[in-house]
Amino acid sequence: MRLRRLREPELLLAIRKDFLTKKGPIILGIGDDAAVLKPGKNLLVVTKDLLIEKTHFRREINPPYFLGRKSLSVNLSDLAAMGGRPLYCLLGLGLPPSLPPSWVEEFMAGLKAICQRERVSLVGGDLSRSPEIVISITVIGQVKRFVPRNGAKPGDTIWLSGYPGLAAAGLWLLEKTNKLAKEIIDKIKAGRLNSIDPLIGAFLDPSPQLRLGCWLARHGLASAMIDTSDGLSIDLCHLCEESQVGAEIEQSRIPLHPALKENFSDFWSFVLAGGEDYQLLFTVPPHKRNKIVKVSRRFNLHEIGRIIKSRQLWIIDNKGERRPLKPAGFSHFNP
Amino acid sequence: MRLRRLREPELLLAIRKDFLTKKGPIILGIGDDAAVLKPGKNLLVVTKDLLIEKTHFRREINPPYFLGRKSLSVNLSDLAAMGGRPLYCLLGLGLPPSLPPSWVEEFMAGLKAICQRERVSLVGGDLSRSPEIVISITVIGQVKRFVPRNGAKPGDTIWLSGYPGLAAAGLWLLEKTNKLAKEIIDKIKAGRLNSIDPLIGAFLDPSPQLRLGCWLARHGLASAMIDTSDGLSIDLCHLCEESQVGAEIEQSRIPLHPALKENFSDFWSFVLAGGEDYQLLFTVPPHKRNKIVKVSRRFNLHEIGRIIKSRQLWIIDNKGERRPLKPAGFSHFNP
Repeated sequence: MRLRRLREPELLLAIRKDFLTKKGPIILGIGDDAAVLKPGKNLLVVTKDLLIEKTHFRREINPPYFLGRKSLSVNLSDLAAMGGRPLYCLLGLGLPPSLPPSWVEEFMAGLKAICQRERVSLVGGDLSRSPEIVISITVIGQVKRFVPRNGAKPGDTIWLSGYPGLAAAGLWLLEKTNKLAKEIIDKIKAGRLNSIDPLIGAFLDPSPQLRLGCWLARHGLASAMIDTSDGLSIDLCHLCEESQVGAEIEQSRIPLHPALKENFSDFWSFVLAGGEDYQLLFTVPPHKRNKIVKVSRRFNLHEIGRIIKSRQLWIIDNKGERRPLKPAGFSHFNP
Repeated sequence: MRLRRLREPELLLAIRKDFLTKKGPIILGIGDDAAVLKPGKNLLVVTKDLLIEKTHFRREINPPYFLGRKSLSVNLSDLAAMGGRPLYCLLGLGLPPSLPPSWVEEFMAGLKAICQRERVSLVGGDLSRSPEIVISITVIGQVKRFVPRNGAKPGDTIWLSGYPGLAAAGLWLLEKTNKLAKEIIDKIKAGRLNSIDPLIGAFLDPSPQLRLGCWLARHGLASAMIDTSDGLSIDLCHLCEESQVGAEIEQSRIPLHPALKENFSDFWSFVLAGGEDYQLLFTVPPHKRNKIVKVSRRFNLHEIGRIIKSRQLWIIDNKGERRPLKPAGFSHFNP
């Protein structure tokens, strides 16, 4: 759920306040990665994302098989950020009448692959005609103990899974030359799926960090968590705003993927502001830090900074200077 | 959920078969008005509908306040057709940047009015830019005893709530002259909401039959149920196909609203094939028929025919002749 994406904070605040119901079994409503509900004895966790042609993807550079995978994966990432386990999904598809049937077949094959890998059942939805392709997915899952965005406390350490900026760099490469998409399609057809460039792969086929999210929640190790869908600095900003704290990160501690260094001389805007990585950004109380250090290689985790009391974002740059970190997020489709 | 709307039965059959999972707590998956799930002790009922500009509505004739109401109501109608009670909804909105803020405010006011009337909590969603307006709503509810589409048996009587064809006739009037929409907006602004023409009101602001659906399910009176979103004859066809039976309806028993007779000399295509009424069509076993007769005035119910063994649809016309009933459904947006 990316209610902030529209950059109309007033509208969102109004919706959030206006529809706030104190009655009824709602544990966590609008404003986190997913809603946490309690209709019966168990907690449900529910999320919904819209993917719209020309805003979130383009037919020329998003092969339908990968788009099917990604459409579900971005929703699963929201669930991962709560520590939830997915059970069901619903699919709404708006399709232009001119779309070739093979597009739909490949899209559904991609969706099915992620359904099977993550053991999610498609239980319903809606098909409709539409001038542009519209994909709307709802995921319903379970959670016993969840991690909200708003639990970070001063002194907590800040951790990140994976490498930031890969997806935005991959999109940049794809947009530079549409040929790459063609090459990728050929690779898929030849069964050489694994040989996809790590940057382009990160953009076309993100991996929701369900196992990590579940593990952190189950063991009560993270005090706050968010998935990096908008960009590292802006998602850190969201987490800090919700927790009413600030943060200080160290540039030298941010993990850099070799492919970023190979392809770009200046990659820091991708790293700090590139969206769509769908990794997990979370905070850990000091006395639990050692437990994360122990699994940091297994889950590819890096400690990048700490939570501070004053509500500002800082970055200590490679020269040791402390500078304000401007929250920014971009993707080429959603500038 | 109107998976059939795209008229690609092969695709839908493939999806339904392909994603069918025997494992996991799914009581009813793709193919009914809503999915019935059992993630814990209680049954959940979940539905999702997409509304896309120029396919399902047009800015010129759908005032945003009523569109907000209708977007939720059509989903609640799917829940009503299962006998479910709604608890939560999620909203995905794709909006063109050029849309005036007042449009969004009025849309949200309409959505909120139905949320409050039906005690549904908006718990999350997604906002995004989009070339056309896209509305995606998911509703999650509870059900103890549900009514599927596939339970009709030969000898069951066929019942319908409300008057068929009003919404399609209302849309026809609205399309004939855009002035009517202006008049309606003036009426809303003047607080004269109740004075809306019954035909136009049926199209702009349908009433999901939640109380009736719940009551029928709780007392185990309906053997099969569907909401009339596609048109009487086609929805009857869906119910019969799922139940593997046929039906015979009597033209003289179909209730006709006075406004239809006043405005049109030939209204039968609206009555038999007009979509978007969002009333309930259900079947009742012979030994339970009396119980329905008793409440038929309270709920405005009419007995229009009976289920037969041979898998065909028939209509006994006003001259007493038995003719095949061709399943057809239309709305001007979705021809």
